[in-house]
Amino acid sequence: MILDKINKTNDIKKIPKEEYAELASEIRSFLIDKISVTGGHLGSNLGCVELTMALHLSLDLPKDKIIWDVGHQSYTHKLLTGRKKDFDTLRQFGGMSGFPKTKESDCDAFNTGHSSTSISAGLGLVSARELNNTDETVVAVIGDGSLTGGMAYEALNNAQKLTSNFIIVLNDNNMSISENVGGVSKYLNMIRTAEPYLGIKKALNNALNKTEAGGNLAERLKRAKSSFKQLIIPGMFFEDMGITYLGPVDGHDIGALLRVFKDAKKVQGAVLVHVLTHKGKGFSPAERHPSRFHGAEPFDIETGLPTNPRTVANYTDIFSTVMCKLGTRNEKVCAITAAMPDGTGLKRFHNMYPERFFDVGIAEEHAVTFAAGLAIGGLKPIVAIYSSFLQRAYDQIIHDVCAQNLGVVFAVDRAGIVGSDGETHQGIFDLSYLSGIPNLTVMAPKNKWELSDMLKYAVNLGTPVAIRYPKGVAYAGLKDFRAPIETGKSEYIYKGSDVALLAVGSMVECGESVRDELEKRGISTSLINVRFVKPLDEVLISEAAIGHSLLVTMEENVISGGFGEHVSELLSANRIVTNLINIGLEDSFIQHGSCAELKKACGIDSESIVSRILERFESDRDNEKTS
Amino acid sequence: MILDKINKTNDIKKIPKEEYAELASEIRSFLIDKISVTGGHLGSNLGCVELTMALHLSLDLPKDKIIWDVGHQSYTHKLLTGRKKDFDTLRQFGGMSGFPKTKESDCDAFNTGHSSTSISAGLGLVSARELNNTDETVVAVIGDGSLTGGMAYEALNNAQKLTSNFIIVLNDNNMSISENVGGVSKYLNMIRTAEPYLGIKKALNNALNKTEAGGNLAERLKRAKSSFKQLIIPGMFFEDMGITYLGPVDGHDIGALLRVFKDAKKVQGAVLVHVLTHKGKGFSPAERHPSRFHGAEPFDIETGLPTNPRTVANYTDIFSTVMCKLGTRNEKVCAITAAMPDGTGLKRFHNMYPERFFDVGIAEEHAVTFAAGLAIGGLKPIVAIYSSFLQRAYDQIIHDVCAQNLGVVFAVDRAGIVGSDGETHQGIFDLSYLSGIPNLTVMAPKNKWELSDMLKYAVNLGTPVAIRYPKGVAYAGLKDFRAPIETGKSEYIYKGSDVALLAVGSMVECGESVRDELEKRGISTSLINVRFVKPLDEVLISEAAIGHSLLVTMEENVISGGFGEHVSELLSANRIVTNLINIGLEDSFIQHGSCAELKKACGIDSESIVSRILERFESDRDNEKTS
Repeated sequence: MILDKINKTNDIKKIPKEEYAELASEIRSFLIDKISVTGGHLGSNLGCVELTMALHLSLDLPKDKIIWDVGHQSYTHKLLTGRKKDFDTLRQFGGMSGFPKTKESDCDAFNTGHSSTSISAGLGLVSARELNNTDETVVAVIGDGSLTGGMAYEALNNAQKLTSNFIIVLNDNNMSISENVGGVSKYLNMIRTAEPYLGIKKALNNALNKTEAGGNLAERLKRAKSSFKQLIIPGMFFEDMGITYLGPVDGHDIGALLRVFKDAKKVQGAVLVHVLTHKGKGFSPAERHPSRFHGAEPFDIETGLPTNPRTVANYTDIFSTVMCKLGTRNEKVCAITAAMPDGTGLKRFHNMYPERFFDVGIAEEHAVTFAAGLAIGGLKPIVAIYSSFLQRAYDQIIHDVCAQNLGVVFAVDRAGIVGSDGETHQGIFDLSYLSGIPNLTVMAPKNKWELSDMLKYAVNLGTPVAIRYPKGVAYAGLKDFRAPIETGKSEYIYKGSDVALLAVGSMVECGESVRDELEKRGISTSLINVRFVKPLDEVLISEAAIGHSLLVTMEENVISGGFGEHVSELLSANRIVTNLINIGLEDSFIQHGSCAELKKACGIDSESIVSRILERFESDRDNEKTS
Repeated sequence: MILDKINKTNDIKKIPKEEYAELASEIRSFLIDKISVTGGHLGSNLGCVELTMALHLSLDLPKDKIIWDVGHQSYTHKLLTGRKKDFDTLRQFGGMSGFPKTKESDCDAFNTGHSSTSISAGLGLVSARELNNTDETVVAVIGDGSLTGGMAYEALNNAQKLTSNFIIVLNDNNMSISENVGGVSKYLNMIRTAEPYLGIKKALNNALNKTEAGGNLAERLKRAKSSFKQLIIPGMFFEDMGITYLGPVDGHDIGALLRVFKDAKKVQGAVLVHVLTHKGKGFSPAERHPSRFHGAEPFDIETGLPTNPRTVANYTDIFSTVMCKLGTRNEKVCAITAAMPDGTGLKRFHNMYPERFFDVGIAEEHAVTFAAGLAIGGLKPIVAIYSSFLQRAYDQIIHDVCAQNLGVVFAVDRAGIVGSDGETHQGIFDLSYLSGIPNLTVMAPKNKWELSDMLKYAVNLGTPVAIRYPKGVAYAGLKDFRAPIETGKSEYIYKGSDVALLAVGSMVECGESVRDELEKRGISTSLINVRFVKPLDEVLISEAAIGHSLLVTMEENVISGGFGEHVSELLSANRIVTNLINIGLEDSFIQHGSCAELKKACGIDSESIVSRILERFESDRDNEKTS
């Protein structure tokens, strides 16, 4: 095995050229083997094996810096930087992250997770290099999907002023997570098929830069000879922005990649290297079903089928079904996704109502303001965006939707702890950032039926609504608790007299276990399904506070600005003195692991909550004794 | 006066062609007259008088829809839609807004205020039109400055798929609020000087679209004939994205504008009309000093000088001075602005340290991630962005800065109530959205010296810090209270025994008046300068709660998720029973007016606060009596 010789950074430089192809093949087998057990991002990683090898061969790591946009394609990079041994712990609690982490390796230059940040970060590193007078090479690797995100363009627009080298590798697999959309994608598609060029242009640029009045002459020639350039240079779009374009280059041809990177390093300014790759390359199930193998659960290598096929519906499935029903019932209902038709469950709606379905690309800001436009136009848009990605559109939610009090529904999937994607993907801020916005109603369902009821309610409300629901299996318990949704009204599940549990969404299921444990110990426990984080059910919360000796709020969200704080504020505003515990997430970022492990580690699992309640009772008893 | 005949929507259509120039001139005089008294956005409005007239002549309002990007250039539009009489109340409390408001007129199609939203909103209206089977024309008017914002590009990228008409007017004055930046700006500059073309291309397109296999042929010709196109079509950049380009057109030539809009309406799909205008046209002080007359205070028409020249420093001035000092003291200090070198006060830093100053255009997302890159590169970036615009970068603050715990300093200007810009510009959410983010320190200074001290402290901290400070005069009182800044430590200004006022930033000055009033009434009052909204000063707050009969938190921020809620939570977590009033902004958007009027209306002025405290004392006395 050639791979046996790869144990630390730059080991790849000792491998003879002739063995590159074999090494690439071994890396692919290694990744397929490991990911089939742990799960993880397969397609994107198989697509950039040669690209990563070529970068490592061309650069001097860790001195030189690679920024991986989104970062889920960094597995080969991890393998080549001494982390081969860690793949058994990939995305596991306490193990190796599925994304670049500066704390994991000095070869990880910048943490990523969300899309379209790499050019901005790279420009920062380049500007720092200029001010520090150092000479490291900086490379941002960005996919064509990430190029639909606005901030990538903001960065490109700023890259033109550079006078020192900055390499932007456009890893173009003609795919976002799902199919790619938009004008730029079409444009890239067009130039994919253009004749690759390298030599002519270099000669032209060299000639121009050699003249005394080089700058001006080059400028003038740029205009006068644009017809010529357009003939020989496919990347006019980028050139128009002031960025040198090199490519397209076959991203699976290491020799070609090494040559283009050698050229790219000589450019005095920003240079975009257009690399064509094939998502899922080398594993036919992933090549055939790129979307399914984007973020894969553990699978059987022979068949490509999941090792533990899912047998019960998750919340996304429920959302998917309800959306189709809503679409049938009301022809004003539209659905918007930011490049996630599969992930959000909108694919079925797309199939049924293609003209009312909008995939806008990785463009959350546009998605929300676009929805506001639809609403002004009399439609009923539902925007489905994961909790952590919706952070991107915080201003648009305030400025375009809520300030105009428009009937846009936000389906906030992956709210709460999301597990193995870790830190950047945890949906732990939404209750805070959403519930501070005037005019917005914020809800969370306790089970699958309630998600359905809430969606129907929200579509009819005519004002902005956010419904947040977690990743994973949709809770199918408490089927009989289906009182009609009424604005700002909570729901009693059980009535007791000692402790009142005020549980938000996913925490209702957890609240049942907590209640069982407390009741076993003779503590009479109420369980309240909060339903509305905004507006608060002032009456019920106040009564619960007065009617019980202990009130416990429970939410999968940071405590700061969350439901618990709102309850604290409500009670103090109403001058209700009570014994209150706010269960939520402490003030820190949460790494990767299974949801169960993470909840336990964060103290929001039923066992931890029961302990905290019992402790409180004990300390109260102690206080009574001593007083 | 021709203007006398303009009293309601479409009155302009009765004016004979020959009088257009005179009408434009009268409108300019009217705007200069009115704005010289009320203040307001002058330059941008003077620049688009003819453009607005031509749009009104070309469209059928209110059926057709115009979306004004940012919206501060909509004065002529307001004048032409029956609001001439309201200009005396422009931007005044209860008067006419300086931005489009759907509630003000059925000719205002979509509310704006922040940059780069109009194409997204317009696409929403166009998609709604397609689904509703109606036939209104939709026009988005966007400045070249707004085109540096990423979401405009996200929208352009989505516009190519349209098969029905959508007119994007690029109002190109070669300016942002200050000078424009970036590759696209350079590109526009290049094509400004190109030969305007209209006829040739229309003929070409018509020919192509008439053939049977039109689409395919057009596609193929697009590639094959790109050399030809590039020669005759200046807008290749937009054409590459799939958007028809018409222009450039002289934006002060109504005849030319009418012709181009006639053509534009025939395009089946998205069409960008490139209009060249001159900011401040017709008022020489504004032409000479476009930045000063962007948002103007009342001024003398003869001289262009402010009627009430500012004699005392505002917080922006203080920031400006301290930044220069910090830059001198530490060569790692860098400054970043998103198109606001004047507004944020960074111009002086730019003059002193041009290589460490970065104006990235209207691109808050990029600004923040770029700063993260600088910090990873060992520099000390200070990002100066107004509170309401920083909402745009909420995700980047979390994902790129705080998750990596990087030493980026956010100078959050215009925090709190900002006055006449109104609803979209109020900086009333930052304490909530910032204090929920792990690793971030959140501060607010009580006076000008403290802003200076906090900035120095923040630059040395090495972890993320946000400092929020308000618009307007920097408080110069309490000069002697200058205890060194210490993480998470508040500062006692006065010690009393009955009431403790916990005041955040600007509310300390207000707290002095409140205390004076209370003391007059024999109520012994402590005044505490909170300094840190995060981390909280747990010890001092707990002691203050225990040591006083009433605790009052005071902040210029929404209550939801703000300082007061954090205090409520802290006290209930520590089981401190107290009498607490949280003063802050209720759950609603705040319109325009003077800061004093708005604070009074919101109940956060000293008089309202004193009343609430006295009420509480009274009701307590009543309760004591009856119990």
